[in-house]
Amino acid sequence: MVSKNQIKLITSLHLKKYRNEHQLFIAEGVKVIKELLQSNFVLEHLFVTETIFEEVSISKKTLVKEADMKRITALNSPSPCLALFKIPTEQKIETKGLIVALDDIRDPGNLGTIIRLCDWFGVTQLLCSDETVDVYNPKVIQSTMGSIARVKVNYVDLKKFISKSELTVFGTFMDGKNIYKETLPKDGILILGNEANGISKDLEKIIKNRIAIPRFGDIQQTESLNVATATAIFLSEFRRKG
Amino acid sequence: MVSKNQIKLITSLHLKKYRNEHQLFIAEGVKVIKELLQSNFVLEHLFVTETIFEEVSISKKTLVKEADMKRITALNSPSPCLALFKIPTEQKIETKGLIVALDDIRDPGNLGTIIRLCDWFGVTQLLCSDETVDVYNPKVIQSTMGSIARVKVNYVDLKKFISKSELTVFGTFMDGKNIYKETLPKDGILILGNEANGISKDLEKIIKNRIAIPRFGDIQQTESLNVATATAIFLSEFRRKG
Repeated sequence: MVSKNQIKLITSLHLKKYRNEHQLFIAEGVKVIKELLQSNFVLEHLFVTETIFEEVSISKKTLVKEADMKRITALNSPSPCLALFKIPTEQKIETKGLIVALDDIRDPGNLGTIIRLCDWFGVTQLLCSDETVDVYNPKVIQSTMGSIARVKVNYVDLKKFISKSELTVFGTFMDGKNIYKETLPKDGILILGNEANGISKDLEKIIKNRIAIPRFGDIQQTESLNVATATAIFLSEFRRKG
Repeated sequence: MVSKNQIKLITSLHLKKYRNEHQLFIAEGVKVIKELLQSNFVLEHLFVTETIFEEVSISKKTLVKEADMKRITALNSPSPCLALFKIPTEQKIETKGLIVALDDIRDPGNLGTIIRLCDWFGVTQLLCSDETVDVYNPKVIQSTMGSIARVKVNYVDLKKFISKSELTVFGTFMDGKNIYKETLPKDGILILGNEANGISKDLEKIIKNRIAIPRFGDIQQTESLNVATATAIFLSEFRRKG
């Protein structure tokens, strides 16, 4: 059974304000929870509608009715499990390797997909501008499909961080140089911009290497690629060459 | 004003059954509608909450209240415009060039994103298995961001089509050959499979060329890439080399 207070707490975690207050976040779905349980994330409590996750001790697990799951889920179609995990204390930022930096990504699905891509391509450090959507948003966690367990995410003042960094910085712009023809290093910072406006003017000033994915086909349209699919292609090129 | 009958008709078009019956589909958002108006698609009627699309004749346009727009929209947050377009009569399938084939893609957002990618990479023919989500689903149209105006989509028996085709066929599999090391032709058929199960066993039998995106990083996880981001990387490799 879920108590009224538990329902109140869990649904409050749909909002960033209360996630920060309680230092907890929601994860849903068997795959996501399984990967978090196998990682350094600390489980606060698990709610299940079936007898799954036998490895979790009875003191940390509550069997609930489907009707109760519907009341606490952040999904349209609830899964058989919902877990609360502790938000980890801020970890030291890695300053080498290939780092992905996001300048004001707003869509939770895009952030989640980018974390999944980082995981696939062995990028272990993701930097987000303070305006980027919160990584502990339930929709972000959901769309990482568990990759959040293996990618470190830090929120920073990107301009400050990049100004100090010794890594080569690459910014993605519509008018950048053809990514297929560029020599790309193994280590570096790859910056992706906001869905509607791209990289902010302020950050653009300090970026020397401007790269782009060339458009194919006859007709020249103004259309741009979605930021997550663009990230897929940029990371593929960095890893292929680096 | 929108009449009760119009509301009934429009909301019925959220479902495939009624789209087929009326041979109409919904498009929302300024960008999507603008691109469709500039294409071969035929406008049936346009509903707007502001004085936009001055190029559309008065007989084909109705100014509606925001409250009415909320009643007819298929989106969570309605845009200032909703258009009904005629579903085009089935067109002849192109049998040359690079063709993308989808074997049972179920998520509307994935199909829309793949159409947008085809547009970017100059792929003008997309083939879908009969089980693939309907391209005229409002969520698909929305996520194409207007690219549907430039990519031809046909639903076919993929096995039958591929058996007869003279193009080289490439199937994407987890255990396929490293895409970065393969020689890829300019023309061919690239097959992507279902989100959960990949390419169906039945189709797999007739595919000779199995390709994959290699995973980077130290830890070997079972995680796979999302089908839309995988399509981005495959198309990038085909166009770069072809």
